[in-house]
Amino acid sequence: MTKSAYDDQNIFAKILRGELPSETVFEDEHTLVIMDIMPRGDGHILVLPKNSSRNILDIAEADLLATIQTTQKMAKTVKKAFDADGVTIHQFNESAGGQMVFHTHFHVIPRHKGVSLRAHSGEMEDSQVLKANADKIRTALS
Amino acid sequence: MTKSAYDDQNIFAKILRGELPSETVFEDEHTLVIMDIMPRGDGHILVLPKNSSRNILDIAEADLLATIQTTQKMAKTVKKAFDADGVTIHQFNESAGGQMVFHTHFHVIPRHKGVSLRAHSGEMEDSQVLKANADKIRTALS
Repeated sequence: MTKSAYDDQNIFAKILRGELPSETVFEDEHTLVIMDIMPRGDGHILVLPKNSSRNILDIAEADLLATIQTTQKMAKTVKKAFDADGVTIHQFNESAGGQMVFHTHFHVIPRHKGVSLRAHSGEMEDSQVLKANADKIRTALS
Repeated sequence: MTKSAYDDQNIFAKILRGELPSETVFEDEHTLVIMDIMPRGDGHILVLPKNSSRNILDIAEADLLATIQTTQKMAKTVKKAFDADGVTIHQFNESAGGQMVFHTHFHVIPRHKGVSLRAHSGEMEDSQVLKANADKIRTALS
């Protein structure tokens, strides 16, 4: 496989096919939003296009547009859900760019004044904490 | 002025009106791309919608879509221009989210394996270095 090929065994592809569980907070025709299981802040979510692409370097325009629309919707939603002061969005491309899972995604992280992003610890968040934060987002959406 | 109002005296608004200089590398009907004068890596650029908005929390959908399309184009372009291994995209909203200039913008930073992002030093890059990097991007676009 060339460096830039799409590997359909990546974990987001498996989540999109229902082969792995996720804490899903929003879904529409073209996108899925799940909790990041190694959050850098409470309410850290990931916005995924449903169609396959590796990252912004190869994604089809229609998928990119749908993904940024959902990203905007979710930025407003997590700000409300966590009474946040701001929102940080990261989108990483290739390992050197910070990407760890090679299916296009946007990170959306609610932020509070004086609270830094947590470092990547490599440890998974407690599932009950993730579920409680997901519920806050679902409530803000409803 | 409320916290979330648009202040048309921000530096990007002044650049868009031609009241402040910038090292511009790309422009179309809806967007402008300039060199970040405090780059976190060589080739660090900023993609701005021409219409006024504070950030992703208030930007009009059409402006957001135009901005992400230019962001994608520029991600591919800086990867080529700097023979980069990856690309990091940041989009910050409100001070707590990392935003320093309150006109919507996407940061696009070409990345190389083993090279960390430079810290925000608060110091401006040498204008000749900025111009040389801008020229690499213009060449890759042409």
